Amino acid sequence: MKFEIIGTDKNSKARAGKIYIPHGEIRTPIFIPVGTVGSVKGVHQHELKNDINAQIILSNTYHLFLRPGMGTIEKAGGLHCFINWDRPVLSDSGGYQIFSLAGNRKLTEEGVIFHSHIDGTKHIFTPEKVIEIQRSIGADFIMAFDECTPYPCDFKYAQKSMELTHNWLKRSLQRINETESKYGYDQTFFPIVQGSTYNDLRKKSGETISSFNQEGNAIGGLSVGEPTENMYEMVEVVNDILPIDKPRYLMGVGTPENILECIALGVDMFDCVIPTRNGRNGMVFTKNGIINIKNVKWKYDFSPLETNGASMVDTQYSKAYLRHLIVSKELLGAQIASIHNLSFYLWLVNKAHDKIIEGSFYDWKKIMIKKISTRL
Amino acid sequence: MKFEIIGTDKNSKARAGKIYIPHGEIRTPIFIPVGTVGSVKGVHQHELKNDINAQIILSNTYHLFLRPGMGTIEKAGGLHCFINWDRPVLSDSGGYQIFSLAGNRKLTEEGVIFHSHIDGTKHIFTPEKVIEIQRSIGADFIMAFDECTPYPCDFKYAQKSMELTHNWLKRSLQRINETESKYGYDQTFFPIVQGSTYNDLRKKSGETISSFNQEGNAIGGLSVGEPTENMYEMVEVVNDILPIDKPRYLMGVGTPENILECIALGVDMFDCVIPTRNGRNGMVFTKNGIINIKNVKWKYDFSPLETNGASMVDTQYSKAYLRHLIVSKELLGAQIASIHNLSFYLWLVNKAHDKIIEGSFYDWKKIMIKKISTRL
Repeated sequence: MKFEIIGTDKNSKARAGKIYIPHGEIRTPIFIPVGTVGSVKGVHQHELKNDINAQIILSNTYHLFLRPGMGTIEKAGGLHCFINWDRPVLSDSGGYQIFSLAGNRKLTEEGVIFHSHIDGTKHIFTPEKVIEIQRSIGADFIMAFDECTPYPCDFKYAQKSMELTHNWLKRSLQRINETESKYGYDQTFFPIVQGSTYNDLRKKSGETISSFNQEGNAIGGLSVGEPTENMYEMVEVVNDILPIDKPRYLMGVGTPENILECIALGVDMFDCVIPTRNGRNGMVFTKNGIINIKNVKWKYDFSPLETNGASMVDTQYSKAYLRHLIVSKELLGAQIASIHNLSFYLWLVNKAHDKIIEGSFYDWKKIMIKKISTRL
Repeated sequence: MKFEIIGTDKNSKARAGKIYIPHGEIRTPIFIPVGTVGSVKGVHQHELKNDINAQIILSNTYHLFLRPGMGTIEKAGGLHCFINWDRPVLSDSGGYQIFSLAGNRKLTEEGVIFHSHIDGTKHIFTPEKVIEIQRSIGADFIMAFDECTPYPCDFKYAQKSMELTHNWLKRSLQRINETESKYGYDQTFFPIVQGSTYNDLRKKSGETISSFNQEGNAIGGLSVGEPTENMYEMVEVVNDILPIDKPRYLMGVGTPENILECIALGVDMFDCVIPTRNGRNGMVFTKNGIINIKNVKWKYDFSPLETNGASMVDTQYSKAYLRHLIVSKELLGAQIASIHNLSFYLWLVNKAHDKIIEGSFYDWKKIMIKKISTRL
């Protein structure tokens, strides 16, 4: 992987860059659509590519491990082949899912024993195993196994958990070095900063993670229920420490507003289920604000979903029709809202890239945040 | 509407034709994808048009009446505008849904009082009202209100019900003649033959329906649980009576095999939820037979969904991937299976059209039925 910064904003810490990895180039800042089990819900692969303009997608280690399982993915020749996606893929660490989804888990220094949320079967994830799973997935970006602390979390627990995550990181790296990519292209490893909402812990974790001198770094354990201001503060603290010349990936964030604010704090990569999950529930993000399409005010609004919107669905379908589909729980409603929202998110980060290079990011961001946060 | 027969099969009663109506031409025999509430589940309108090659879609009077309601559809300028579909639409009579979905219904000579399956609200459908609803929908083909008898059904009930359907037909026609199309194009009215599985009743109904001399005729009340041979027998009896120069529409039928057999019996139009509903559940129809994609035998089959299949999804996705999506209840699984199955159905009827014209329909049908009924 090569990361090149091609523009910086003088009024903030925002940077525009390019990542070069075997499956292609990625313009940063970038938003990564979430393809949990190897599919972005409701969206065809060719739509992701040609309409949404996704440059990379994310898949979940925990989910893919349980279903279809590594046997299938290895026999397919890796996730790219299995799902027919030739652009980059990032796999997460599985930490977040184990601590939020799996039942009856037991955490030890060795790893986590957990029960599948699908059939209750018992499994263990260790840092080493999570690396091996991601070798099998064949993701371009692979993540260290971490404990994702909940919010709120007392200082003592957060500190102990952070230390565990740091110890696990050493083991992850050892396994990385002992193993090779399975499908002939390099995989880029990112360690993850933890430390809950404590400045001291975040600083310490940022320093420790930086000292491992990896190709890029991730910030985890945020957007788990803490106030937004807290999240911004933690991102600021950590980004002051993480090396400036390496990509920074803020995991699981967030709303369009969160993304613009965190770009201004120097974040380069984002992923989040909001555009798809909230989309399926009728929340539509546009350049002019947020639409709750279930609201009766759209019942007779036959205007396009968004005028000059970023996607083909914006011209093909009306607000009234999408409202009808979402209210009727029709599959097509979820499909339209997902394509629209993802197209909007990709448009937003692409525009941010351009504005940083043009030198107008800061002013543009102020205007955009006002507009995109408005409830229509 | 104009119906032109451009070829007939010398070894069966199959015919190939063309229907000309304001929204376009339809090659017959034709299969009509079901778009219950104004959407073919899991399929974009542009996919229906450009990939599946659907020439007409069906929508349900009962469903659209309840949701979004006629106010919305009228304000949109009719269903075509509301859903953004510029090819023909057929609306059913609502009869089948009232007798299978609605709760707590009461049948009188006047009409049917029923309760919505969505919110329990009370409504009445009369022959007149059903015509008015279909005027509001703006469908190209509109159906008479009928009572769809269940199977089994005793002779007395079937006879009484058939007579009711015939009485209702007179009232439907009167309302048709008293009203006008709302959106500037003609709507073609089809009466419906009933009579359960009784030869005498089907004959009687076929004669009565024919005597009204409408532009086309529908056969209802079949594929409701009766043995397949019974269904074929009833279709044969009725088609011997229905005018040869007018399109015959067999409602709610069926499997690919049913469709080929009924084409041979002189049916021109079909609709059915099988390709989409069964598709969502993992049943995949191909030229070489039926795949239950949930079967473990497909777990490691990374070959295309169907080699030389009729749709773009056949080359884009593998059997193993579709299996994974369907097992994981992912939206994309339903989308892929629906597009594939509908493309196959449209391919099949198109091919039947060509074979009838070429004069090889009968032999082709025999070979195809063997192939497409095989369980792979």
